[in-house]
Amino acid sequence: MSPVRKGIVPPGQAKDDVTAISPVPLHTQIREILRRRILDGSYPPHSQMPSESQMMAAFGVSRITIRQALGDLQKEGLIFKVMGKGSFVAKPKAFQSLSKLQGFGEAMAPSGYETYSLLLSAREVEASQLVAQRLELRPGDAVFEIQRLRYLNREPISVDVSYFSMALGQRLVQEDLAARDIFVILENDLGHNLTHADVQIEAISADESLARHLGIAEASPLLRIERLTFADERPIDFEFLYYRGDAFQYRLRIDRS
Amino acid sequence: MSPVRKGIVPPGQAKDDVTAISPVPLHTQIREILRRRILDGSYPPHSQMPSESQMMAAFGVSRITIRQALGDLQKEGLIFKVMGKGSFVAKPKAFQSLSKLQGFGEAMAPSGYETYSLLLSAREVEASQLVAQRLELRPGDAVFEIQRLRYLNREPISVDVSYFSMALGQRLVQEDLAARDIFVILENDLGHNLTHADVQIEAISADESLARHLGIAEASPLLRIERLTFADERPIDFEFLYYRGDAFQYRLRIDRS
Repeated sequence: MSPVRKGIVPPGQAKDDVTAISPVPLHTQIREILRRRILDGSYPPHSQMPSESQMMAAFGVSRITIRQALGDLQKEGLIFKVMGKGSFVAKPKAFQSLSKLQGFGEAMAPSGYETYSLLLSAREVEASQLVAQRLELRPGDAVFEIQRLRYLNREPISVDVSYFSMALGQRLVQEDLAARDIFVILENDLGHNLTHADVQIEAISADESLARHLGIAEASPLLRIERLTFADERPIDFEFLYYRGDAFQYRLRIDRS
Repeated sequence: MSPVRKGIVPPGQAKDDVTAISPVPLHTQIREILRRRILDGSYPPHSQMPSESQMMAAFGVSRITIRQALGDLQKEGLIFKVMGKGSFVAKPKAFQSLSKLQGFGEAMAPSGYETYSLLLSAREVEASQLVAQRLELRPGDAVFEIQRLRYLNREPISVDVSYFSMALGQRLVQEDLAARDIFVILENDLGHNLTHADVQIEAISADESLARHLGIAEASPLLRIERLTFADERPIDFEFLYYRGDAFQYRLRIDRS
């Protein structure tokens, strides 16, 4: 018995055989076809994938089979779902190494990426319990908060909320925060000797304000970074970084011993 | 003029003053009250926060003010939203250090955490393009896939999908995968000399199957880890780890130079 074509392919697509008698499960066959179309650009970044119904008709398979294939691609990060709208193709993600403490601009420049920061706000606020504890102040003490929206190749990629002592914050905003990393200003202009940072990495959902700034749907996944940077062993810069899950990843080599 | 109590507090709660004439914005005052209630256990982990309408009435403020306060707490990871249901209190997150390559059980044991793995599946599959490339095989070659649901203190925390050569995978499933880390089995029982791993970290949304295994709502944020572990400089173990965003974080100290 020769392989049986179970369905037709969407118009404009190269032909692909999906067959129920192959030892490879149908959803795996479909996943690999869809993967190929994403990687060869037939489905370009940010484009909407065909609907489940369209794919059911095109491949001649059940909804559950299509969902399994899409689920696998979603797990890999090749596509993402927007509630009530369907599945979309993810872009290749930019990545930053965690092996060395670097500002985002510094880290991206060697790969030829263009970075830019939009200053959202710069103001005095009362230190929350967490901010005070990290910067070795008392809760309610005045601290300087700088909020920036960071762009990578002209697309928003992260919201950075940074806290400094009042004196340091007021000095920082006199510098060109649009074009330069705060780390670089701290070292080169202000003579601070940055030594290390303590970093926490987790995943959260975008609230309405982060989603709006980042141009993504509310509740989209974000990487949330809490980073406390030290100069000569004293905490100097406490930050929350919110990176778009669909656009960014960290990379790292870890030794066993 | 003395501070004016703007509203009442929810029944059963300690009294808290929220005042429009304080220099501290209303939403900040409310955020700090809610934060205190979360941290002192008045709102315990996994409990549902009062609704926006209840809080509007209790504090005598507008919906936008409540939303700002909740947005801040969500950004900090203290609460999380479930679409159509409201806001819930997050648990304190377990964390694992990224400074040293360790299995989850190894990493958690010193903190007194109990870990356990449920074997979801162990089977031969065809290597996808990505799996084949990482393990230095050809796409379509047979590989051994082990899927485990990992528990921390009897709650599901991650789904781990691991790929091995056929021979190694078939050997591994003869061991006690419920109680022991694969890293430990590889080293102690099978004599492999693990050297390092290359790790990618990103944030994704849970698809239906991950959400079901992890006992969370579909589209909840997850940390997604791609990890390729080497023994004597040869790739031996390629994995996808999906950690619940509400339950887990990575920590790391990074040096500037």
